[in-house]
Amino acid sequence: MSKAIVLISGGMDSLLITAMAAKKFDELAAVFFNYGQKTLKKEKECFLKICDHYQIKNRKVIDLEELGKIGGSSLTDANIEVGVELDKKEIPLSYVPFRNTIFLSYAVSWAEVFKAQSIYIGAVLEDATGYPDCRPEYYEAFNHLISKGASHQVKVEAPIVFLSKQQIIKQCLELQAPLEYTWSCYQSVDKPCMKCDSCLLRKKAFDELSLHDPLLA
Amino acid sequence: MSKAIVLISGGMDSLLITAMAAKKFDELAAVFFNYGQKTLKKEKECFLKICDHYQIKNRKVIDLEELGKIGGSSLTDANIEVGVELDKKEIPLSYVPFRNTIFLSYAVSWAEVFKAQSIYIGAVLEDATGYPDCRPEYYEAFNHLISKGASHQVKVEAPIVFLSKQQIIKQCLELQAPLEYTWSCYQSVDKPCMKCDSCLLRKKAFDELSLHDPLLA
Repeated sequence: MSKAIVLISGGMDSLLITAMAAKKFDELAAVFFNYGQKTLKKEKECFLKICDHYQIKNRKVIDLEELGKIGGSSLTDANIEVGVELDKKEIPLSYVPFRNTIFLSYAVSWAEVFKAQSIYIGAVLEDATGYPDCRPEYYEAFNHLISKGASHQVKVEAPIVFLSKQQIIKQCLELQAPLEYTWSCYQSVDKPCMKCDSCLLRKKAFDELSLHDPLLA
Repeated sequence: MSKAIVLISGGMDSLLITAMAAKKFDELAAVFFNYGQKTLKKEKECFLKICDHYQIKNRKVIDLEELGKIGGSSLTDANIEVGVELDKKEIPLSYVPFRNTIFLSYAVSWAEVFKAQSIYIGAVLEDATGYPDCRPEYYEAFNHLISKGASHQVKVEAPIVFLSKQQIIKQCLELQAPLEYTWSCYQSVDKPCMKCDSCLLRKKAFDELSLHDPLLA
């Protein structure tokens, strides 16, 4: 029996990888991380809806609030404003230090007990060029670490790392994945702010496809 | 100013690396992890005493109880008994899946904000031959991961990885490190059980040095 663990943040990227994994594996487990993000409530709601939709019974909400307290990111630190940083070359303020490594390490720990062969993560290079932990070479290095440090061999896969936001939306539609159960905004939980990087990227992609975002009235 | 983050579990190994780091760096930060271990209370007490002794003001107790809930280890799972596994070649039951990677990832996250150049971990190869995440090649792989995935470059160092327990005790004494503030037993919090692997290794080392363990009456 093939098994995978899917990291679901509640965004479109994680929706797509869940849809892909649901087609490919016999059994899925899903994990969501609370790291003190400002939009926690909404993201967690989306996680649960996506799990329900794909009938994923093995679910964990992992509390990593201590990570938020370390600070250093606009996504968790009340003293750092969520900004527009799309065209900057530096590492964005929204970068949460080494976050993906902590997430993946937990997933590997669970995979050792759940006996999953794969871990799916919805990292995307295009919209995160400044995030060091979204690059393919980072995932290669992580898989090397697993080969050295884990008792059970599981592979981390970032199956949509080279896709554009447009391609992600198109593939979600092709797989009939429920885009209405996703959330992208970095700062609001009632309606998308349409000002942060994440809202702007989402809008641009829907506009270019001449499609209507189900989140917008 | 040179800075390091030290992972302190409250055992003799972490005491020694703290003593070493206190000599070498201008400023230290210390982190302790609660991962649902059975001897939490005692280990945390030792962590605090060691921090006080070395006047480390930057301290974090990170709550990773979710890691304990994943199970799979005799150190955290009430259904798995702490056993004697010293001479086994397999991975011991006390192995907590991918634990050190989660610990180190947190430390890297903090290091990015605290601007530490080094992270000290008291991994020891000899008494943990079966633990995949105590081997030198694991630390090489982790440093490679940092070079690919972190925004701030920090190096993980395992400065006592090749020492024996005897050498660790001797170096603690040379550095006047307070061995009475350490705890090694895997299952008791009042007095050492003298039955688990960790107690047996500690006793053997003190015996071979013809020294008296300050923890024993």
